[in-house]
Amino acid sequence: MYQVIDVDLGAQSYPIYIGQNCYVERDILARHIHGRQVMIVTQEKIAQHYLPALQKALVDYHCDVCYVPDGEAHKNLQEWQNIIDALLHSDHERSTTIIALGGGMIGDLAGFAAACYLRGVKYLQIPTTLIAQVDAAIGGKTAVNHVLGKNLVGIFYQPQCVIADINTLMTLSQRDYVSGLAEVIKYALICDARFFVWLEENMPALLARESSALLYAIDTSARIKARIVEQDEKEQGLRSLLNLGHTFGHALETAATYSDIRHGEAVGVGLLIATQLSADLGWLAVVDAERVKNLLAAAGFKRQLFPLPEASEWLRLMRHDKKTQDGKLNLILLKKIGEAVMTSEVREEQVKQVLGPECRM
Amino acid sequence: MYQVIDVDLGAQSYPIYIGQNCYVERDILARHIHGRQVMIVTQEKIAQHYLPALQKALVDYHCDVCYVPDGEAHKNLQEWQNIIDALLHSDHERSTTIIALGGGMIGDLAGFAAACYLRGVKYLQIPTTLIAQVDAAIGGKTAVNHVLGKNLVGIFYQPQCVIADINTLMTLSQRDYVSGLAEVIKYALICDARFFVWLEENMPALLARESSALLYAIDTSARIKARIVEQDEKEQGLRSLLNLGHTFGHALETAATYSDIRHGEAVGVGLLIATQLSADLGWLAVVDAERVKNLLAAAGFKRQLFPLPEASEWLRLMRHDKKTQDGKLNLILLKKIGEAVMTSEVREEQVKQVLGPECRM
Repeated sequence: MYQVIDVDLGAQSYPIYIGQNCYVERDILARHIHGRQVMIVTQEKIAQHYLPALQKALVDYHCDVCYVPDGEAHKNLQEWQNIIDALLHSDHERSTTIIALGGGMIGDLAGFAAACYLRGVKYLQIPTTLIAQVDAAIGGKTAVNHVLGKNLVGIFYQPQCVIADINTLMTLSQRDYVSGLAEVIKYALICDARFFVWLEENMPALLARESSALLYAIDTSARIKARIVEQDEKEQGLRSLLNLGHTFGHALETAATYSDIRHGEAVGVGLLIATQLSADLGWLAVVDAERVKNLLAAAGFKRQLFPLPEASEWLRLMRHDKKTQDGKLNLILLKKIGEAVMTSEVREEQVKQVLGPECRM
Repeated sequence: MYQVIDVDLGAQSYPIYIGQNCYVERDILARHIHGRQVMIVTQEKIAQHYLPALQKALVDYHCDVCYVPDGEAHKNLQEWQNIIDALLHSDHERSTTIIALGGGMIGDLAGFAAACYLRGVKYLQIPTTLIAQVDAAIGGKTAVNHVLGKNLVGIFYQPQCVIADINTLMTLSQRDYVSGLAEVIKYALICDARFFVWLEENMPALLARESSALLYAIDTSARIKARIVEQDEKEQGLRSLLNLGHTFGHALETAATYSDIRHGEAVGVGLLIATQLSADLGWLAVVDAERVKNLLAAAGFKRQLFPLPEASEWLRLMRHDKKTQDGKLNLILLKKIGEAVMTSEVREEQVKQVLGPECRM
């Protein structure tokens, strides 16, 4: 049983399947694998739960497996090159299909490898984390990190399909699972006030991973992402709204060199900062800022989640973000719950203030 | 003074400018550079001739230069990463423009870096070798080599424009210059019998680098390449005809680890082999095979140009080429002068025979 969301990108269009036990449905796999060779890119701890069933469903193909070490620190050019080497050493041809089985890191690495191997081979996304199912696996952003910042090297390269199976979320640690809720809340904040209300009411069910709540949250999030990507695949404008909380969050991840904090946790704190700054500027009503703060807190996101850098260091790291233009910071902020805007007009002192210890959030 | 050939690829369309002294025309540069930042990727020996004039034409921009060492052995992931590092360390933003000033190696490296830097920035091609002006700079193929073979890692990424200035060819060594004629002859062989006749008549003028002959040969070659790329950007079919001679040639380059031979020289020998095999199969008339052999010889291409690997080793290396499908060799061969076809039906013994010392070419 699964629902399908179509991402309409002309010749690069593809479906997102959302359901239970759909990642081993042979008809779905056969529909999107056109050659005889398959390379599954995954991690040991994911493989132990999901690889045997996937390999069984792929029994008609020549199937190789490439393992990537765990941890965002390994989302780098070295591991990307290891995937390319594995493909070459196993004689994979242009007709091969790469399957990314894992979280956003696996999808980003495998997608970037697919984009560059023999100038581009096909790939499928089977995201196994909430954050990847609602965000990373959709929209064709692939990349690796650089010591100077996150996702600085990569390309836009769309998959053949995305298979989001909620069964694969049941083995996630609560910390990993919950971190994905930051992106879900983000979608509500940028463009869906009704979804925000639904989240206020259903956060306990989501935290308990109840199937019906999960399917609704993933479906709603994936639809929002798909509609935005359709209108702005290469992030010329609209798509950058999806970076709400991310410019602040990426800098936090760089400061922590990707080791101690989850991407979703950094985004969660980034959403808090963006909300406070929006309120400070008088754009967002104080009562709404409180609601956002409360929803984020209900999901476990608060400023004290991990040690924060000094305001000036935080700001310096933000300047290395891809969204910088003519040296100016481009920030995504909130006009109200359900409406985000991009601005380059906020003065640095105001940003610095909200990053400092005197911030009320 | 310049002619313009438009490459029609929808949203990725771009012009090819062909002329004398056009690479420093400010109106051309301004038309294709949209930000304030420029990164010129080049080599020391090219820079000494052409960089000062280019920098003078770019005086209105913030202009950085990244040097790549000379030699195909440096067309690798390490040098690609060095370009990315240079861009990051000089704070280049998404609006930056990369200019590839050099031969095919520089264009391939800089284009691949442009494709992946911040998920894609704009780039211009200013090819300074004959082979790059008629082939490598046109059509958006970017790549680096791998120890297992040439151009195995890269993507299709179109430039903003190509500026082919014949003045930049005057400082080439005769060996470097002549090697480019292999690709010119290739275009005539695959689809233009009249151009083949013109080449038979004008080879002395071309070898002497006479302006009018050069402009005609580059214009004709670039037009053929543009028309083929327009019909098959991603090399699903037709475009693979441009690989006439290349499957044989790439293997030679891999065998020599890119050090002792020029790409064009390897292609020249590859064209000889493809011609002989086409004649052996009875596809190409013996008299026409002789004409091809004579034209190639007039340009300096013969089998004895450099030591060749054993037939079986040569064949083994060919199997690592990107054109392999289901383990079968895909070869481009000639039906007649001006008509090439792709085939996977030639028996390996026949290929092996033409690669061995008993071959008559």
